[in-house]
Amino acid sequence: MKVLIVFAHPDKRSFNYSLLQAAVKRLEENGNEVKVSDLYRMNWKPVVDEDDFLNHEKGTRLKITAASALAFKEKKLSADVLAEQEKLAWADTVIYQFPLWWMSLPAILKGWIDRVYASGYAYSVGPHDATHFGYRYGDGVMKGKKAFLITSVGSAVEHFSERGIGGPIEDVLFTLNHGMLFYPGFTVLPPIVTYRADSRRDEVYKNAEKAVLERIDNIDNVEPIHYRVQNAGDYVIPELTLKEGLEKPGDSHYDIHIKKD
Amino acid sequence: MKVLIVFAHPDKRSFNYSLLQAAVKRLEENGNEVKVSDLYRMNWKPVVDEDDFLNHEKGTRLKITAASALAFKEKKLSADVLAEQEKLAWADTVIYQFPLWWMSLPAILKGWIDRVYASGYAYSVGPHDATHFGYRYGDGVMKGKKAFLITSVGSAVEHFSERGIGGPIEDVLFTLNHGMLFYPGFTVLPPIVTYRADSRRDEVYKNAEKAVLERIDNIDNVEPIHYRVQNAGDYVIPELTLKEGLEKPGDSHYDIHIKKD
Repeated sequence: MKVLIVFAHPDKRSFNYSLLQAAVKRLEENGNEVKVSDLYRMNWKPVVDEDDFLNHEKGTRLKITAASALAFKEKKLSADVLAEQEKLAWADTVIYQFPLWWMSLPAILKGWIDRVYASGYAYSVGPHDATHFGYRYGDGVMKGKKAFLITSVGSAVEHFSERGIGGPIEDVLFTLNHGMLFYPGFTVLPPIVTYRADSRRDEVYKNAEKAVLERIDNIDNVEPIHYRVQNAGDYVIPELTLKEGLEKPGDSHYDIHIKKD
Repeated sequence: MKVLIVFAHPDKRSFNYSLLQAAVKRLEENGNEVKVSDLYRMNWKPVVDEDDFLNHEKGTRLKITAASALAFKEKKLSADVLAEQEKLAWADTVIYQFPLWWMSLPAILKGWIDRVYASGYAYSVGPHDATHFGYRYGDGVMKGKKAFLITSVGSAVEHFSERGIGGPIEDVLFTLNHGMLFYPGFTVLPPIVTYRADSRRDEVYKNAEKAVLERIDNIDNVEPIHYRVQNAGDYVIPELTLKEGLEKPGDSHYDIHIKKD
């Protein structure tokens, strides 16, 4: 495999960085090639602004989607963004590793998505016709590549269980797995989530490392999350509503967008 | 009212900035005091790092929660964070206004949450005993204050409907409304969401402005989202799972955490 790990934690002595090192070591031992985008060490710029688009006339109105599309088309995205897109093109597997802060990505990683996922590249791609609403959700630039999340939370697993106050972890991570990974075409593998990552460090770390190494060793056999492909007939176009009767009885909310057999 | 608007868009000629100006004007006309944290114009630093904690010894291990708690306790959070906390203390109503990028906050605003919501301030507060699991979800430093989101998306409303491919908008925004606003104690009013904000600008803008001005004029009469308070008896402590039988028949996922009568 050619694996890109996009990593977000400020401290190299952290739980997450140790896990990163273990993952890189095992990947390389198994004969894979690995690149790491270590966002803190790269001093990654997280903020979308006019400097991202080298062909944008400074000080004029900045419509993000249009400016991004034009810069992508004319190869005028800033060099740091292009470098990340090249890594993505090179990789067949992408891992996003981060602590879950306020139910979502740390800002530096959100800013990687905001900037690298350019218009014409990761969104606003493909035809709009009777059977297509662009290449999105299961289709797009990342098609054929696998991706998954490795994340850690301070809370106990029960807090993110079916009746837990935070909501089921599958729902909490849906906008990431489905909205950021499946959207541009990745095949999404289940996330690896460590709970109570702030406490009982040794035992928790050992279990987390075990889960990561097992994933690496067995990645070819891991069943992806079967999100429904947008343009494969399950959705009314252009409303993008799931056709009646496709979901399992009793399924609702995000669950109806996962195919179950 | 004393209203703080936390605003995230790079361009002062944008849809969102026009809406901000209209909101500020109406708020002031109605006799309210307004402060705006215009994150792009403030050049807000979005990235959590050791510079946030003035009493942290540089180059030593950075455990974010511990470092944040100690800096908050010893009044050694960086000046930009303290200034935002002072605005929050001053305000009785907080509006978060931003375009929804990749189903979530722009990085600069996520970084405002990551940094301003310090440990001991917005989380890791209050007792853990038989009836409390800290002051969280309906309790905490923001108790008694109202908050709501004003956001815009490029997609059509159907894409975020009950059967829409993105999931119901209430679910998409749950980790923001419940996880970032209700968590530190805000009373959460329904969000104001504009769809297709990239197209048919005049009509779309006019409707968005109308919704915002109506909200401002009628804010005292707006029913909040009735998220269940964590320490009020509905949840098992410390598992924080909703007690059996409290939800309406058929409700599941995030919906069970909203009280319906």
